Amino acid sequence: MLGLQSISSSDLGSALTGHGIITVDESALGQIEAGADRVLEEVGIRFEDDPETLDLWREHGGIIKDDCVFLEGSRLRQIIRGSAPQSFVLRGRNPDRDTRIGAGQPAAIAPIYGAPNVLLPNGRRAAGSLEIYRRLVSMAHAAPAISNTGHMICVLNDVAEADRPMEMALAHLTLSDKPFMGTIASPEAAEQVIDAVSMAVGREPKAGECELLHLINATPPLTYKENPLKCLRAIAQRRQACMVTSYMMMGATSPVTGAGTLIQGYAEVLAGLALAQLWSPGAPVVMGLFGIPFDMRSMLPCYGDPASHLMQIYAVQLARRLGVPVRGEGGVTSAKMDDGQAGSEGARATAASLLSGADFILHGAGWLEQGRSVSIGKFKREAKAIAESCGFGADQSALPLPFDPRLEADLRRRLRG
Amino acid sequence: MLGLQSISSSDLGSALTGHGIITVDESALGQIEAGADRVLEEVGIRFEDDPETLDLWREHGGIIKDDCVFLEGSRLRQIIRGSAPQSFVLRGRNPDRDTRIGAGQPAAIAPIYGAPNVLLPNGRRAAGSLEIYRRLVSMAHAAPAISNTGHMICVLNDVAEADRPMEMALAHLTLSDKPFMGTIASPEAAEQVIDAVSMAVGREPKAGECELLHLINATPPLTYKENPLKCLRAIAQRRQACMVTSYMMMGATSPVTGAGTLIQGYAEVLAGLALAQLWSPGAPVVMGLFGIPFDMRSMLPCYGDPASHLMQIYAVQLARRLGVPVRGEGGVTSAKMDDGQAGSEGARATAASLLSGADFILHGAGWLEQGRSVSIGKFKREAKAIAESCGFGADQSALPLPFDPRLEADLRRRLRG
Repeated sequence: MLGLQSISSSDLGSALTGHGIITVDESALGQIEAGADRVLEEVGIRFEDDPETLDLWREHGGIIKDDCVFLEGSRLRQIIRGSAPQSFVLRGRNPDRDTRIGAGQPAAIAPIYGAPNVLLPNGRRAAGSLEIYRRLVSMAHAAPAISNTGHMICVLNDVAEADRPMEMALAHLTLSDKPFMGTIASPEAAEQVIDAVSMAVGREPKAGECELLHLINATPPLTYKENPLKCLRAIAQRRQACMVTSYMMMGATSPVTGAGTLIQGYAEVLAGLALAQLWSPGAPVVMGLFGIPFDMRSMLPCYGDPASHLMQIYAVQLARRLGVPVRGEGGVTSAKMDDGQAGSEGARATAASLLSGADFILHGAGWLEQGRSVSIGKFKREAKAIAESCGFGADQSALPLPFDPRLEADLRRRLRG
Repeated sequence: MLGLQSISSSDLGSALTGHGIITVDESALGQIEAGADRVLEEVGIRFEDDPETLDLWREHGGIIKDDCVFLEGSRLRQIIRGSAPQSFVLRGRNPDRDTRIGAGQPAAIAPIYGAPNVLLPNGRRAAGSLEIYRRLVSMAHAAPAISNTGHMICVLNDVAEADRPMEMALAHLTLSDKPFMGTIASPEAAEQVIDAVSMAVGREPKAGECELLHLINATPPLTYKENPLKCLRAIAQRRQACMVTSYMMMGATSPVTGAGTLIQGYAEVLAGLALAQLWSPGAPVVMGLFGIPFDMRSMLPCYGDPASHLMQIYAVQLARRLGVPVRGEGGVTSAKMDDGQAGSEGARATAASLLSGADFILHGAGWLEQGRSVSIGKFKREAKAIAESCGFGADQSALPLPFDPRLEADLRRRLRG
């Protein structure tokens, strides 16, 4: 595709052997950018069911055809470099937990995000529930390596969908004083949680500070759906952080090659990151770019495949050139239990993120079974391993927080609007 | 110790997070060298029960007191830099299997070395035996990622000790055509195997080529025993390769700190590497330097501890400054079965070796239980994972070799002397 021959599977070999440091050919990065520019200009990106986004692009030189927008890549980079902060601070209820994202700081680490099921320590599987969720948040709070307690560590299957954002935010705010991630259930829910958390944190934000990081996903290939677009706008306008991510299944939702996947994903995130800056110049953003080989026989992504670790290394370098913090993957794996495969795949993915220099690592603990389960055992094992790698001692574990009925009642009131 | 404050446990954090490449402070390397020089000059190294080694040191300016020799570090580095090759070729029976060690080539990978026990695929444990050994060699031959079939993959408990070097060499020579490692049972056994392998390889060696790599271990703290010293001499004089290694248990056979351990180990290997060059200028060598935290309660080394991965990164850089190829560790772990702990610890150790740029990785597949067992399942899993990481396809697997009764008979005759 596009004549790119500079990134092949054998590149992973040379990236991982022989030379001793993770090096990426600068000219290959330039070729990825040039390829993405051609995709943006000739193929365009679809922005579905959100006329306001189309109007904004029209104002800023986009060429619109139905819901497809043709864009100029160099202009998008200019917009991003012009106002996106190179780093920002995520604030917790406890000021000691405030975490700078980017600027060469150690990676912030959050647990798995989005698991419908839970693998319990007794080996049984259960549907995610509020009770388990609260236990998982307490575990994340206690783990010294986990600096951000994340969001949707498991799905709250026993809570009505409309109430889930509130119940999750309450769990994070009452069982932990670390920063965490916001909801993207709807723009209204996102704003409600932002209000409640701002109140709970209480301190007036300084420039470059916010409370919540939100996962805004493109829908590859080359599409953004209505809800992420509306959430992106609402969140950026509230000066909270968006992690704009393209999560591609190589061979299914992106080209099968590494080069093609990087080109497509970079085009997608470039558009999303620029949108955030156009809605709200200076709004904090993180870039995420992932390619997971997809097995067309089982119709499942192959987590743990080293090709995705190569994508990770390139993604970090592309973000560095753009001047924004970048997301890394934690212990993602296709293994069904916490066995040798899970340990090895997860450790290699985490090592690729840490060693390439990712700034915010999602899925840092607990991921199992293509992300369909959070494993309590793997959560503990990974949290401990990362703590050891990064030099945290057990003395830095956080004690459980005392129950504060007034805080809980206040927050419930605020979250109910 | 020695006022070194530049390597602390928090360094692993900064090596593994934030900056995105494995960087090592050059001034810290200089401090390690200076510390080792002081150890060599003021504490000295013991060379036990080998008057010829003491005579050689006396000739070259060493100060001898009983069997302790006080040496000048800068002179040792001068000797090593003056004649040790920066890279060399290990030759197999099949010229296509010849492998260059060093010079930025991808790491050569060999299986676990020295396991008394075997964990079978049915979950049972057995004592190592000749039959299992032959199966392990065939597996190493078939695995595309394994470029060197190693030595003593398990112990041949059912073969008389005197016959083991011959039986192992026969297995490697008849069931594989890849290069492998030589015996250090005794200098005589080493020479016998060298003769047989030279005959089997058949081709006249060019400069910088040899067949066998041998593991020559120091005995920390600051000691070399008689047999390794005599083997080192015999092997170097036959122009075969020695991997001079200090394998330290931090807190037991070396200082508990990373800096102290690196200083002690570097002093030890400097002396061993220089000895090889004094006996036979230009003889191929590899440097190995390892520190494993030691648990004083269980009296067991803690394989998988990230401190040892930090040691690995520094060891590679110290060897680079010395201009010799360097050893890396493969999937070492303290786990008792191939579970999440085994996968994670092994993958992180292997990643530290590959990413820091080690040239020859020992224990690359099969290691379990502090090295007391070789696991057939973990062997296969790791060989596959490394092949994927380094871009080898299944099409590069080697077929089993046809049984060659003449080769076997010839070799038996030759090995029996």
